[in-house]
Amino acid sequence: MPEITKVALDAMGGDNAPGEIIKGAVDAVNSNKNIIVYVVGSKEAVDSELGKNTYPSDRIKTVYSTEVIETAEPPVMAIRQKKDSSIVRGLHLVKEGECDAFVSAGSSGAVLVGGQLLVGRIKGVERPPLAPLIPTSKGVSLLVDCGANVDARPNHLIQFAKMGAIYMEHVIGVKNPTVGLLNIGAEEDKGNALVKETFPMLKNISGINFAGSVEARDVITGDVDVIVCEAFAGNICLKTLEGVAKTLLSEVKKGMTSSLKAKIGAALVAPELKRSLKKFDASEYGGAPLLGLKGLVVKTHGSSKAKEVKNSILQCVSFKEGRISERIEEELKHADMEEA
Amino acid sequence: MPEITKVALDAMGGDNAPGEIIKGAVDAVNSNKNIIVYVVGSKEAVDSELGKNTYPSDRIKTVYSTEVIETAEPPVMAIRQKKDSSIVRGLHLVKEGECDAFVSAGSSGAVLVGGQLLVGRIKGVERPPLAPLIPTSKGVSLLVDCGANVDARPNHLIQFAKMGAIYMEHVIGVKNPTVGLLNIGAEEDKGNALVKETFPMLKNISGINFAGSVEARDVITGDVDVIVCEAFAGNICLKTLEGVAKTLLSEVKKGMTSSLKAKIGAALVAPELKRSLKKFDASEYGGAPLLGLKGLVVKTHGSSKAKEVKNSILQCVSFKEGRISERIEEELKHADMEEA
Repeated sequence: MPEITKVALDAMGGDNAPGEIIKGAVDAVNSNKNIIVYVVGSKEAVDSELGKNTYPSDRIKTVYSTEVIETAEPPVMAIRQKKDSSIVRGLHLVKEGECDAFVSAGSSGAVLVGGQLLVGRIKGVERPPLAPLIPTSKGVSLLVDCGANVDARPNHLIQFAKMGAIYMEHVIGVKNPTVGLLNIGAEEDKGNALVKETFPMLKNISGINFAGSVEARDVITGDVDVIVCEAFAGNICLKTLEGVAKTLLSEVKKGMTSSLKAKIGAALVAPELKRSLKKFDASEYGGAPLLGLKGLVVKTHGSSKAKEVKNSILQCVSFKEGRISERIEEELKHADMEEA
Repeated sequence: MPEITKVALDAMGGDNAPGEIIKGAVDAVNSNKNIIVYVVGSKEAVDSELGKNTYPSDRIKTVYSTEVIETAEPPVMAIRQKKDSSIVRGLHLVKEGECDAFVSAGSSGAVLVGGQLLVGRIKGVERPPLAPLIPTSKGVSLLVDCGANVDARPNHLIQFAKMGAIYMEHVIGVKNPTVGLLNIGAEEDKGNALVKETFPMLKNISGINFAGSVEARDVITGDVDVIVCEAFAGNICLKTLEGVAKTLLSEVKKGMTSSLKAKIGAALVAPELKRSLKKFDASEYGGAPLLGLKGLVVKTHGSSKAKEVKNSILQCVSFKEGRISERIEEELKHADMEEA
């Protein structure tokens, strides 16, 4: 009998909550029968949105909460004070083992802080990084860390490399994934102090398929499977990528609809163009997991629609089946023993 | 009588040297009669390429050098040892006042180091930043620093803001340009240690039109005129932007030529699409000036073709006419007096 993956879902977070979020839950349970989603949110919102959809009733459960953490709220305070918020309630379901994972499109800060405070870090993990999958020309790469730990130290980056490689191998199925260090040049002597200190350490660790430095312009080409970086640089890389992709594609669209002749041309070219660009659609890959916690916490874009929510939920199944948390714990235990 | 701008040009640097570089010089003098270009390079290469072109002979001068600094060479050593390289010879022309500016598509490291060692910093400037113009939806913004000074301190970023604002106002003509601090969130409490320390300083300086934090995804939308950042983050932003733009546009092209139907559509849509995307063509804006030196030093892309070289040379005219170096010196002298 296949395992069931139980996912707590924040119905109140994100620009398109609750409608698109709950539609994502419905689409997920309708597409994979080994998922149960616990929808967490206000009774009114949850009941009303669920009422608009058709789904097997034994695979969507409701958990009613009365509070919502807003994006602008200071995260630590919000997590401590809003005990009946959808984020705190959802994280508690993971903490208590009721659910395997928590997915939210709400406040990044609250999800990151709450994940660490409530779900807790795996023994040995110093700083859990946020690790989104980035669509590339060749498929998909993992960017660790893209926003959780600014001003990280070299030993944190080493852990990011290990956790990222485990994720790519056992969730995405990349055998012996290559790991690159995000840098401003290809040579070993390039970089800031952090990168210069980390480079030789990564080079000398057994079990990491280290490919050296990777320049930011080669992130999208998919040169390496795992890109390791400090969170400030990683966030700049991720957000630039998203911003440029959005702006350029909207300019392409604008150009294609600016005259009747262009519109006719656009209609002819549209199917091939869509196929060619589909692989760069980030919503295909779900959200960003916070790696190194005792349970899975996934942050999806604030702008997520049903498709991304659905894919974020499906991602939890691969994470559970790949035994990622257990493998990270074993790997870091092993590293501790090597050093001792 | 209009002023003449004299530009020393490294004919040996970049992927397309010497042919495209020298063609750029020819195009520049043919398009603006107040420019004289000193082409610096090996006699053989320079004479042979110039021989293929038509131009007013009194406005291209030749300076023969015998050495070339390669991209992979350690910059400090190369500048010290290769005294007859095109980069060292070109920089000397600026140092000695023979030329107003030096333009090179060669080794970034050698141009940055050589600019500081040979041309020298303006009194008061602590670290000269590399400041390229970035094409945006609204026009163009300046990214300071995109690669010269990793691990900068807050007072360096303050100088970047002042120099960047002077550049945008007097070269590009933006009245009272807005300055943003590149950050990972919009709120004042977001960021790494450097950004958190710099934010209140920028906020309190008179004469800077500070617009607060700018997220990386909003760089391309042109929300602010000057984006201030430490060089590692700036380089990640710039290179991600260039890489994503290149990859996506090549995918668009691929989609448009993948079937006969698509090709017909592409032919109809091409003129409008080109118009729509032209504003994102970085080669329209020339190279990146190294701000804060006693003379102008401009680094253009290693992949520059004639158009970018030409625009980099033309940019030197605006720089000289805008009296950028003089204004920077006055501004920093003024700041010293305020603090004293």
